[in-house]
Amino acid sequence: MSKPSLPQGTRDFGPEVVRKRNYILNTIRAVFEVYGFQPLETPAMENLETLMGKYGEEGDKLIFKILNNGLDNPEKHEKARTDFEKILEGKNVKELTERALKYDLTIPFARYVAMNHGQLTFPFRRYQIQPVWRADRPQKGRYREFTQCDVDVVGSYSLLNEVELANIYHMVMTRLELYGYELRINSRKILAALAEVCGGADKLTDITVAIDKLDKVGLEKVKDELTAKGLDKTQIEIIEKYLQIEGSNAEKMELATGLIGNTEMGKKGLEEVAFLLEYAQLASDEPGWGSGGNIPQAPNIVVDFTLARGLNYYTGLIFEVKAPPEVQIGSIGGGGRYDDLTGLFGIPNIPGVGVSFGVDRIYDVIESLQLFPDTVHIGTQVLFFNMGDLESKAAFSLLQGVRGAGIRAEIFHECAKMDKQFKYAEKKKIPYAVIIGSQELEQGTCVLKDLRKGEQQVLSQKALIGYTF
Amino acid sequence: MSKPSLPQGTRDFGPEVVRKRNYILNTIRAVFEVYGFQPLETPAMENLETLMGKYGEEGDKLIFKILNNGLDNPEKHEKARTDFEKILEGKNVKELTERALKYDLTIPFARYVAMNHGQLTFPFRRYQIQPVWRADRPQKGRYREFTQCDVDVVGSYSLLNEVELANIYHMVMTRLELYGYELRINSRKILAALAEVCGGADKLTDITVAIDKLDKVGLEKVKDELTAKGLDKTQIEIIEKYLQIEGSNAEKMELATGLIGNTEMGKKGLEEVAFLLEYAQLASDEPGWGSGGNIPQAPNIVVDFTLARGLNYYTGLIFEVKAPPEVQIGSIGGGGRYDDLTGLFGIPNIPGVGVSFGVDRIYDVIESLQLFPDTVHIGTQVLFFNMGDLESKAAFSLLQGVRGAGIRAEIFHECAKMDKQFKYAEKKKIPYAVIIGSQELEQGTCVLKDLRKGEQQVLSQKALIGYTF
Repeated sequence: MSKPSLPQGTRDFGPEVVRKRNYILNTIRAVFEVYGFQPLETPAMENLETLMGKYGEEGDKLIFKILNNGLDNPEKHEKARTDFEKILEGKNVKELTERALKYDLTIPFARYVAMNHGQLTFPFRRYQIQPVWRADRPQKGRYREFTQCDVDVVGSYSLLNEVELANIYHMVMTRLELYGYELRINSRKILAALAEVCGGADKLTDITVAIDKLDKVGLEKVKDELTAKGLDKTQIEIIEKYLQIEGSNAEKMELATGLIGNTEMGKKGLEEVAFLLEYAQLASDEPGWGSGGNIPQAPNIVVDFTLARGLNYYTGLIFEVKAPPEVQIGSIGGGGRYDDLTGLFGIPNIPGVGVSFGVDRIYDVIESLQLFPDTVHIGTQVLFFNMGDLESKAAFSLLQGVRGAGIRAEIFHECAKMDKQFKYAEKKKIPYAVIIGSQELEQGTCVLKDLRKGEQQVLSQKALIGYTF
Repeated sequence: MSKPSLPQGTRDFGPEVVRKRNYILNTIRAVFEVYGFQPLETPAMENLETLMGKYGEEGDKLIFKILNNGLDNPEKHEKARTDFEKILEGKNVKELTERALKYDLTIPFARYVAMNHGQLTFPFRRYQIQPVWRADRPQKGRYREFTQCDVDVVGSYSLLNEVELANIYHMVMTRLELYGYELRINSRKILAALAEVCGGADKLTDITVAIDKLDKVGLEKVKDELTAKGLDKTQIEIIEKYLQIEGSNAEKMELATGLIGNTEMGKKGLEEVAFLLEYAQLASDEPGWGSGGNIPQAPNIVVDFTLARGLNYYTGLIFEVKAPPEVQIGSIGGGGRYDDLTGLFGIPNIPGVGVSFGVDRIYDVIESLQLFPDTVHIGTQVLFFNMGDLESKAAFSLLQGVRGAGIRAEIFHECAKMDKQFKYAEKKKIPYAVIIGSQELEQGTCVLKDLRKGEQQVLSQKALIGYTF
């Protein structure tokens, strides 16, 4: 028998990793809930036709398709062979494969809204935290099965929604103690205005795609690409000036106004940014925010006109969250406004805005900054020792009382040497042990040991049930 | 464009359903944690060879296989055609499909333990709550994607583990207010003893399979099947007597002792049952258990010698939970002891015991008994009205304070007629509205409306932040 293994690019999450992941996911979920967002869950499988053609040619190739069952029925073989030839041509054939694993949460969400728009109350505020699958080449930090975490408002053009999402980022990052994060923002309208100033709206995609690479390839390569796309020297000079805008948010806004503020589109884009900057300050005087005095009170927004975001469907404000500078990990979240969520499914005119959290990267950031709270390392809080038949009955009875009070506790599964039981507690990082030996049994007491401090005390069994571990 | 749809046998879970499901899953999870069990998550995909051959011939056919990517590469076509012929013969070919969706949580758990047994601390207490996939014919209450919820202790022969699992069932059912549940128990050793008395151990599977059908087909059909399997009249008479054992648990134990108590195996099996009955009472004097005076203090165990459980791998105590008699839904959970979890993966001698919860069925039971708590119907608790530019800024600022205090709140996305905003609150079942109009803005107050009672009061904005909703 061959040794069992996992498919490439997939992972088991053992107890400690699950607890750490849940610390992140529960924090995010709690913030979504406090912001009045509602949970949605869609199946892992979608009809293939729901997914195909939505992610570009490269994306389509990364969709995991599920083979239909029942192909071993001989009556269907001739047809199956013909169908298979089409698969080899890169087509999809319903008789062989009609289902696939979801590639992201956005298209299933759009499909859900399209199917249920008559019953939903708009604006519809939903969040979704689920795994997705991609047949990408696995590499460090890139998996074939990973969790996405999306929050969207659809059915509203109001910029208040963008303000909400900026504040959600702030509350999550603050609760995770990632105080040094930056929320970088821009507007696609500003990029559109830049295109308008530099050669017309048809150059928008070329310019966006080129600017999107700035971080990775540097200014010169961006300029080369723009030249290759047919932009002339004057136009590229304007773009260069635009990309070199620096200073405080106010200074940047002023410089951008000088460059593109005289176009209708540019004015609108700058207004969007200004609106967000103003409203993001509104929470700053309120108590109860965050959990301490030294915590920044408002989202740490950085206007960044070089922010482009790759996806074509954004039309307004766009976001990207950068991890605190102590870790070289870059973006840990992003999103933006789009005009048409469900048009692909025949329901036009449902605009929206949404952002997502890169859970795996946030995990790595928290791990490398050692910011996971101590509590995530502790599963069982108390181990009851098993000292014999009568003693273990008393221990078991007491154990049930302690559990009733909400304490995570267990009893060693068999009567064994103390050594063995201590070793078990140590390996499982259980911080407390309760021992009822023959003497304690007689006296109705128990020994409570704090295994980390190496201290112990004798308590009445009754007192143990009210004990604060 | 065709109307979007969902794959047969799969479901979207909208906000209210997610909240109801989470009420169940969080209750179960909290009990698992209090019992010192640790969470495990395995990927949706497993290597096909990990799954194939583990679920019998029928089971194998229900495994969803994932098509490999990259088949449209022309260089691979000739090979792919040859491979496809093998698929048509019902074989699996790594070049076409090497991954599959998991069919249950047990085999992936076994694979995990086999891969990590060197690092794990035994006994290993794990729980796992994840979706699984089966290409079953969809029908009422049977889905192709559904959540399983398993809890197991592996690496221990101690019967204390069975006691723990019985108590877990009790705590979960009690917390879900399903007080009328029954935990039916038997031991495979008792069935083995019955086989020994009636024609030898080689008849064990035949007898188990026949008895397992008793509920569905009735005694006469069971007797017919036993006759067909070659049991003679005297043997069938003993089995009939065994199946007709009735009375209190103590009476049943006595009758069974008379029938099979003189065999070594029968004695052992009856001891197991007696041990569980005794230990399950141990919690009964403890405070803090359950949440009120009229709640049964100990698991409602019913000895049921007709319980067989279909699966071959059980070797000791077996369990089945029956829903309260008010609902005709039958089993909502079950499990038992097995001797060899990981032998299939080359690691022998890891015994264990585990049970599972039928989440979909428990959902239906709670729904039909109307036992979901009122809180699951409420998402957002407070809607802040949007009464204009200045007013909404004040409202937004106050909103952030209320959220900081942990209240689920939102603001209407645009300035609109009161009517429209009330309608939104009504549709979303939001119980409270906060209104800051021009007068309140001036006075630093707000109007708090209880929308269910139709009452309202004026509060200072500061007082609202401390308000208990």
